[in-house]
Amino acid sequence: MRKIIFICFIFFLMSCGKKIEKTELRPRPVNEMGLIATYSSSFAKLHDVPIHAVELGEGFWKTRLDFNHNRAIPSLLQLLEEHGVVDNFRRLSGRQDTARRGYRFTDSDIYKWIEAAALSLQSYNSPELKAKLDGVIDDILAAQDKDGYLNTYFMDERAKNRLTNFRDDHELYCLGHLIQAAIAFYRGSNERKLLDGAVRYADFIIERFGPGKKQCFAGHPEIEMAMVELYRTTGEKKYLDFAGYLLNDVDVANLEQPVKSSDFDYAFSGRPFFSREELVGHAVRAMYACCGATDYYLETGHPAVWNTIKKLWRDMTFYKMYITGGVGSRYSGEAFGAKYELPNDRAYTETCAAIGNLMWNWRLLNATGEAKYADLMEKILYNGFLSGVSLHGDFYFYRNPLESFGDMVRQPWYDCTCCPPNVQRTLASLPGLFYSTNSEGLWIHQYNNNELNWKLEDGTSVFLAQTTKYPWEGTIEIEILPKNKTEFSLFLRIPEWTSAASILVNGEKTPSSAVPGSYYNIRREWKKGDKVVLDLQMPVRVVYANPRLKENAASFVIQRGPVVYCIESPDHPGISIFDIFCPIDTQNPATGFKPHFDQNFLGGIVSIEIEALVTTHSLEQVPLYDFEKYFLPTRTTTMKAIPYYAWANRGASDMAVWIPWLVE
Amino acid sequence: MRKIIFICFIFFLMSCGKKIEKTELRPRPVNEMGLIATYSSSFAKLHDVPIHAVELGEGFWKTRLDFNHNRAIPSLLQLLEEHGVVDNFRRLSGRQDTARRGYRFTDSDIYKWIEAAALSLQSYNSPELKAKLDGVIDDILAAQDKDGYLNTYFMDERAKNRLTNFRDDHELYCLGHLIQAAIAFYRGSNERKLLDGAVRYADFIIERFGPGKKQCFAGHPEIEMAMVELYRTTGEKKYLDFAGYLLNDVDVANLEQPVKSSDFDYAFSGRPFFSREELVGHAVRAMYACCGATDYYLETGHPAVWNTIKKLWRDMTFYKMYITGGVGSRYSGEAFGAKYELPNDRAYTETCAAIGNLMWNWRLLNATGEAKYADLMEKILYNGFLSGVSLHGDFYFYRNPLESFGDMVRQPWYDCTCCPPNVQRTLASLPGLFYSTNSEGLWIHQYNNNELNWKLEDGTSVFLAQTTKYPWEGTIEIEILPKNKTEFSLFLRIPEWTSAASILVNGEKTPSSAVPGSYYNIRREWKKGDKVVLDLQMPVRVVYANPRLKENAASFVIQRGPVVYCIESPDHPGISIFDIFCPIDTQNPATGFKPHFDQNFLGGIVSIEIEALVTTHSLEQVPLYDFEKYFLPTRTTTMKAIPYYAWANRGASDMAVWIPWLVE
Repeated sequence: MRKIIFICFIFFLMSCGKKIEKTELRPRPVNEMGLIATYSSSFAKLHDVPIHAVELGEGFWKTRLDFNHNRAIPSLLQLLEEHGVVDNFRRLSGRQDTARRGYRFTDSDIYKWIEAAALSLQSYNSPELKAKLDGVIDDILAAQDKDGYLNTYFMDERAKNRLTNFRDDHELYCLGHLIQAAIAFYRGSNERKLLDGAVRYADFIIERFGPGKKQCFAGHPEIEMAMVELYRTTGEKKYLDFAGYLLNDVDVANLEQPVKSSDFDYAFSGRPFFSREELVGHAVRAMYACCGATDYYLETGHPAVWNTIKKLWRDMTFYKMYITGGVGSRYSGEAFGAKYELPNDRAYTETCAAIGNLMWNWRLLNATGEAKYADLMEKILYNGFLSGVSLHGDFYFYRNPLESFGDMVRQPWYDCTCCPPNVQRTLASLPGLFYSTNSEGLWIHQYNNNELNWKLEDGTSVFLAQTTKYPWEGTIEIEILPKNKTEFSLFLRIPEWTSAASILVNGEKTPSSAVPGSYYNIRREWKKGDKVVLDLQMPVRVVYANPRLKENAASFVIQRGPVVYCIESPDHPGISIFDIFCPIDTQNPATGFKPHFDQNFLGGIVSIEIEALVTTHSLEQVPLYDFEKYFLPTRTTTMKAIPYYAWANRGASDMAVWIPWLVE
Repeated sequence: MRKIIFICFIFFLMSCGKKIEKTELRPRPVNEMGLIATYSSSFAKLHDVPIHAVELGEGFWKTRLDFNHNRAIPSLLQLLEEHGVVDNFRRLSGRQDTARRGYRFTDSDIYKWIEAAALSLQSYNSPELKAKLDGVIDDILAAQDKDGYLNTYFMDERAKNRLTNFRDDHELYCLGHLIQAAIAFYRGSNERKLLDGAVRYADFIIERFGPGKKQCFAGHPEIEMAMVELYRTTGEKKYLDFAGYLLNDVDVANLEQPVKSSDFDYAFSGRPFFSREELVGHAVRAMYACCGATDYYLETGHPAVWNTIKKLWRDMTFYKMYITGGVGSRYSGEAFGAKYELPNDRAYTETCAAIGNLMWNWRLLNATGEAKYADLMEKILYNGFLSGVSLHGDFYFYRNPLESFGDMVRQPWYDCTCCPPNVQRTLASLPGLFYSTNSEGLWIHQYNNNELNWKLEDGTSVFLAQTTKYPWEGTIEIEILPKNKTEFSLFLRIPEWTSAASILVNGEKTPSSAVPGSYYNIRREWKKGDKVVLDLQMPVRVVYANPRLKENAASFVIQRGPVVYCIESPDHPGISIFDIFCPIDTQNPATGFKPHFDQNFLGGIVSIEIEALVTTHSLEQVPLYDFEKYFLPTRTTTMKAIPYYAWANRGASDMAVWIPWLVE
């Protein structure tokens, strides 16, 4: 028996070793690299398409990317300048004579802005923005120490504290964002200058910290995914290894400054990633750690890391995520809560956490090709992410609650301004999230007017155009023009929310049925002018919560297509939206909802109306308990729902996503 | 017009002055003073009966007071000794040679214990406890500085920090508890020694702080009610004035150590009490401040303070109180939350906050004679307070959530041990909360076996005996033996929860009907042997929440009499209590519930059973949203509910007060 166990153990070690050992990296031309360059990743099932290969057409997302490029990115640079974030660099090279300003992690804000601008320049030709970008990069590089260190906070009298307090100081976090900014700029412009600076700082760290050297830990994860991406960009395995060290191998007992065990939960780093059992602590930290771990898995296939990733994804989607895709329930620590701790009004749901969730699922989609990850990305994009930015792109929310009592106003700037540039880089990255390729063919994840000008993995050029009124209508026409007649698979995501999907190829119905929540594979010889029409039934849906989510057990959410709806006070003058009840026909719950598209309302939306009831006296005037004692007369009213993302664009308001139902 | 306003203003000033000016105090013999000695309070409608005048008979509360006296009070003294709380005093007089131990506010713990022991000695004859009490008091007094200052934390090197940081240091809070302990000991024993010490320390403070002197603020309210009670005990108006200063007149701009505005919210002090609009901040602080303000109103009739008190009580009962009478929803700051922020599982609901709520309502009852305050006291006593202590009296909860997932275990000791001695003094005070007198006659607030041996306000001796199986049965027999035939009113509280109440006087039904939530006045000439039988219908009730309390909108609470019920995992082996649903007949919701008294179960309780449904697969295995997609087979099960206060007496368990209903 002992022998068998021993042999099994050897076998296990061998199989681990085999899986974790990286196969040879096949670098790709820099302008062919997508958002995450998984082309050579051994455990990637799908591979990114570069941003510049996708040109959005007029429609839902182009409007937003235009605002992002034309208004939001320039105005945020101005705000960053006004708050001294760039001057913090200039003072170090003597170009400015001001004191350092802002939190210790403000460097990351300008790095994220650089990433946003660099990604945006893959879609827009703008010499003016390029010039500004070059200027900022020049200011940053001029501030770098000779030895490679670069952080504007730990200079002068604080220089002695460099790289000592990893729990609080965000130095590796800032480095991570520097690396990501440098990579985005490099991939967009083919200019190495910022990348070289980032590499020098990364090497400075790797020379001093790691196995057998001084110990560090991420503190605020982000560095892990940056290191893996630096590996993908440079081919240098030391960056991948350093990510692996940070994820799994930190010897926390030998940190220079001791850290409490609970801080490793809050920071979602320090402790081996593969030992994690659930999502805890600061939500953005946890999401970024999951991104880095998935990147690491994509390269190494580390089985224990992968098991943990799957466990954590289930923990999130079964117990800890809002219906908007937002995560992080608690104010205290901006943190994940316990199972089913998902308060609507007190939801913290930081915009950055939704972005982290989006980034994680993009990596999971790369790893698996499973539609559930693309479905969740769509949910986040249209809801928990998009609620973080105003219709015109330059006012933001840090929190994204699902219920509000008139006290939330979008701001152009936050003193902790992590979310605004994060929103901007996410919008600018969007074209890179629409498609993937693999050896079988082309995958379409997201639907919106756009043209793809790219190639299959065998090198065959392919042009593809989507024409649609998505997300307001579910019909998508797809025109395909391969350079030559070629056989390949076209994978269409059939969203989990559709009640029925049908597919016509050149006018003929496909033989098998399309299953919601999966990819539909059309394999054929494609020729110029082939046309696919995907028709996704998009009725108004009444969505209920698991009764364990007690706060919503007597409520429902209106959803249509990928869009989650809310009700907001400006559409209900003279009454409190919290006094509205919606009678639901349990046999046919979607009855009575009237969707209506209005181009001139909130940037062009489908709003949804239904006859509902409102109490004639406000529920606020009735005691908390013994509700059965109080007679509450009601009258009918028209309830109007708007997309959740569009709320708070008409001043402070009351808002609710979950609406109380009455059984008729 | 201007003249009229001016005249009105003068008149207003005059009326204010008249109301606030205290009429002459008529001190009473010390052994006639009740828990709060409102006999001479100008704005008291009712007056306390001393604890020693009420002797509990065998029954619900006597069992608990016996445990409190015989087990809990002695064992807590031992724990306080083990943790150095008394040694902290002894070291100052050289009787011990140890370092100071514990938080800066531990002095208050032993003061509360003294209060508990002193109150208990009004009900129990125990030379042994009296000797221990004398010893502890002697140790405390030996530690007092010559100038009167007395706090074991601010000695030696910390002496220089005395009375500087009122936000954090709890010095006035500790003084408040010293005063209350001293008063309790004085009223029980007629010995002034501890009172003299407390007076010296109080005078030390009043000489240095106040209007025109150095400024201070309560920091942790408690001192306000202590100062008013010291006024009631000594007749010295300066103590009342100092309470008024702390409540309304602190010049916070001139505090020695500046305090942030938000801290005055957290501390519920500093800012004028009458300017408060809602309950915010630390719940115990807020409740104690309301106690002090109501005490101040009882003496002065201050109209703005009274308006604020009424506003805050409505804010609490309409928006911020659990069905158990517990308050304080938030972990962060142990604080009140926003309107309707009442999570069941994350409820903080500190035992001390429930006690503060009880004490506040006793003062409000004194001020008004309105049954709603006595009703709420009863709710707190049987639920949110009593859940804080084990069935045998010596294991405690600091938090009292309404839902729990197996992670809560009662403890004999907490490092911040504010709750255990607070529970003990509350139990010991209980006989003092049963009755009041006013010029019209005698008021009965609480029902349980007991004998009252006291006098009417005209001096007529009266003996009264209650015989009942309350709270398990609703019949109360009341025997009345006035010394002589006397006409007076007997006011019986008709609890708000009863479905119907009938009253027989010497076998004859009273002419008018008894209205739940009011006092029924039986005015007649009473003679020896008169007998009143109060019959309170006590069916099982199904209580719903205001739908604004969304977490409970699809649930109900089982209540019977004053007792709130819960379901607990030990009574439901093999299933999760969170998978149980209870079908409710909306026309006749209480149908199917079977109450059953068992003397040998959980100290003798009525448990309640009903046929319910349980899902055959746990809801935990079903995703959060799109619940409509999942088929959930159920099977019948017997759901057993026990009194909420009795939970967690069989080890760690799952528990829920709110139970999901299904409409049949």
